[in-house]
Amino acid sequence: MSVKEVMRLVTFLTDFGNKSVYVAQMKGVLYSLVSPVKCVDISHDIAPQNVREGAFILRAASRYFPRGTVHVAVVDPGVGTDRRGIVVVTKNQIFVGPDNGLLIPAAQSQGEYIAYEISNPTLLRRPLSRTFHGRDIFTPIAAQILNGLPFDQIGPRVETVIDLSFSKPSFVEDTIFGAVLFIDGFGNIITNIHYDDVHDKIKNGQTLTVQIGSKRIQLAVVQTYGMAEKDELIALFGSSGYLEISKNQGTADAYLQVKIGGVVQVRVN
Amino acid sequence: MSVKEVMRLVTFLTDFGNKSVYVAQMKGVLYSLVSPVKCVDISHDIAPQNVREGAFILRAASRYFPRGTVHVAVVDPGVGTDRRGIVVVTKNQIFVGPDNGLLIPAAQSQGEYIAYEISNPTLLRRPLSRTFHGRDIFTPIAAQILNGLPFDQIGPRVETVIDLSFSKPSFVEDTIFGAVLFIDGFGNIITNIHYDDVHDKIKNGQTLTVQIGSKRIQLAVVQTYGMAEKDELIALFGSSGYLEISKNQGTADAYLQVKIGGVVQVRVN
Amino acid sequence: MSVKEVMRLVTFLTDFGNKSVYVAQMKGVLYSLVSPVKCVDISHDIAPQNVREGAFILRAASRYFPRGTVHVAVVDPGVGTDRRGIVVVTKNQIFVGPDNGLLIPAAQSQGEYIAYEISNPTLLRRPLSRTFHGRDIFTPIAAQILNGLPFDQIGPRVETVIDLSFSKPSFVEDTIFGAVLFIDGFGNIITNIHYDDVHDKIKNGQTLTVQIGSKRIQLAVVQTYGMAEKDELIALFGSSGYLEISKNQGTADAYLQVKIGGVVQVRVN
Repeated sequence: MSVKEVMRLVTFLTDFGNKSVYVAQMKGVLYSLVSPVKCVDISHDIAPQNVREGAFILRAASRYFPRGTVHVAVVDPGVGTDRRGIVVVTKNQIFVGPDNGLLIPAAQSQGEYIAYEISNPTLLRRPLSRTFHGRDIFTPIAAQILNGLPFDQIGPRVETVIDLSFSKPSFVEDTIFGAVLFIDGFGNIITNIHYDDVHDKIKNGQTLTVQIGSKRIQLAVVQTYGMAEKDELIALFGSSGYLEISKNQGTADAYLQVKIGGVVQVRVN
Repeated sequence: MSVKEVMRLVTFLTDFGNKSVYVAQMKGVLYSLVSPVKCVDISHDIAPQNVREGAFILRAASRYFPRGTVHVAVVDPGVGTDRRGIVVVTKNQIFVGPDNGLLIPAAQSQGEYIAYEISNPTLLRRPLSRTFHGRDIFTPIAAQILNGLPFDQIGPRVETVIDLSFSKPSFVEDTIFGAVLFIDGFGNIITNIHYDDVHDKIKNGQTLTVQIGSKRIQLAVVQTYGMAEKDELIALFGSSGYLEISKNQGTADAYLQVKIGGVVQVRVN
Repeated sequence: MSVKEVMRLVTFLTDFGNKSVYVAQMKGVLYSLVSPVKCVDISHDIAPQNVREGAFILRAASRYFPRGTVHVAVVDPGVGTDRRGIVVVTKNQIFVGPDNGLLIPAAQSQGEYIAYEISNPTLLRRPLSRTFHGRDIFTPIAAQILNGLPFDQIGPRVETVIDLSFSKPSFVEDTIFGAVLFIDGFGNIITNIHYDDVHDKIKNGQTLTVQIGSKRIQLAVVQTYGMAEKDELIALFGSSGYLEISKNQGTADAYLQVKIGGVVQVRVN
């Protein structure tokens, strides 16, 4: 078995939910078109039609996958309209999905990228549904890429893709204005304030004053969740490098009534 | 690697839920008995003991899988009673599970089929649980089929299986009387009114009067979700060909208070 | 393909939830380090930080997997503190995770075991997160074990691991005092009263008086769920050998208002 064969790996990220039949249909199509191939589910629980959340999860997960992985991502409120389907190729991996911003943060995190519009009609599944391009377009394209399809047969290069770049935090005097990027399954609130941008300002052991939701709280910056008392609110730089607000053995998001996109103001005491 | 090897694919469909340990036990048994083999989860979130919902999902998913796929389906309120276990073989695929109607719509959608009663005691796992035939009977049978077991060693042919055929809609003057087959993760209401049965009556762009739940609504037939305004109710033929009622960026089932099996009356204006 | 290759199987058990990106990150790391390899999800819906529930599920699932399977389990409230990471090796399988009791019931169920502390720094992923050892320590160790790493290069042998042994029921005169081990997706209440410990006291067809939650109930011991009337409460020895209380086509846990760990008193009438 050659290395090339064992590297055939496809991930799926959608907002279809676990109950849906749609994910299984995509996998059936994939296994019908390419073999051997491995599938990994990144998530099917993206909030319905929340392209921004999907983009965050895809970026956070894709970097851990091997070179050559093909990611099929479908959070696609514009399916069947004139929004384009695209394939985005970086030096490491390939992303297939709608041109609505979903794929771009992940691709950007791998450096330069080239985007192709999916327009070659011979590559699509027939009959072609107007409402489910994940099954009828994106998965067949992924399969054919794994089978050796040259990228320039997908369609013309796209110069400008839709880009919902994540906002960076801004700095006004001694206050950092950020936003909530994501809330994980433990209720940890993950902000867009990255260690690389603030490591000269925020250090372990410091106390922060944080304005978030309707509350103003004081909390210490610690190294790990286990260093806090039960129910204590803490701040830490999480496993992806972003500043998180966490309630030890509790759910910070419920306590602070915070949602994705909400404003976070941070001041070092 | 021969084609035969790479085609060893088993799907699982159950009502066990994602939290359950039962699915993992079935996969452990499978991997202990056959190698190499691939597993795909169709769904484990069928409503508990809802054979009809399981049958709909199995039919909707199985047709997209490759020739030779073995489907293990377990929605089984009669486990341990005298209901039979069966293997249903079509010209394309194999279905293993209880004889309670679960497997039949999927098999029928592939044309003619032959059913065998699972009665050869040497094929079962020991000790044999009275409550979990998915692990102790259906998965071992699937594994042995993939290992080359001839079908006639499973047990005698069954002439009459239990068949919960999905009702077809009926037509009274200019009204179509249908039923809700399924509600997907987006809250889209999927009816049993198939495009093939009504394409001479319902066309894109028309307006329908629909009586559903406690409400009477008027809605347009469109080609895709993205063609509606936010929160607008629409009708469309979905990716499996059935008429769906959808609330753009909302959940139609919650708004209309509809459940699986509920009556849908449709009249073209 | 040798047997060794096809036996490369890793399971994952966590409390990360299905929405999380963390599971996908672990799988990406695994696929980047070892090939070919198969992944199976045992569960990611362990109640957050509930080590005892995780231990029960891991023990119940692992015994069905093939010899040589590596189980990565992460229910880890002490991550980043001085709790140790360990590898536990039985004659059949390998368990990788925190030294907090999570792995031990599963290992004990396979007989004698040897534990190694993960302390060789060259085996870990860099940069090493303080909050996500599942991705940066346990999965890389599992991958390297599959690639042939000798166990004695992981770190020194550990003589005493943390052991949350499941309590056994106690017997006072004619009453059995047990506890709720687990509640499954159907609402079945699984107690710690095992058939092997009570088969001389409790037999099929008998009637039990059970004090559980705030209720005292009488119920028959039957062989399988389907032998009860709709909504009838029954007792039976389930597919893992434990006494279960079940409400036919209903959810016993909601009706009896029972939680994991709750006391169960059983008396044979």
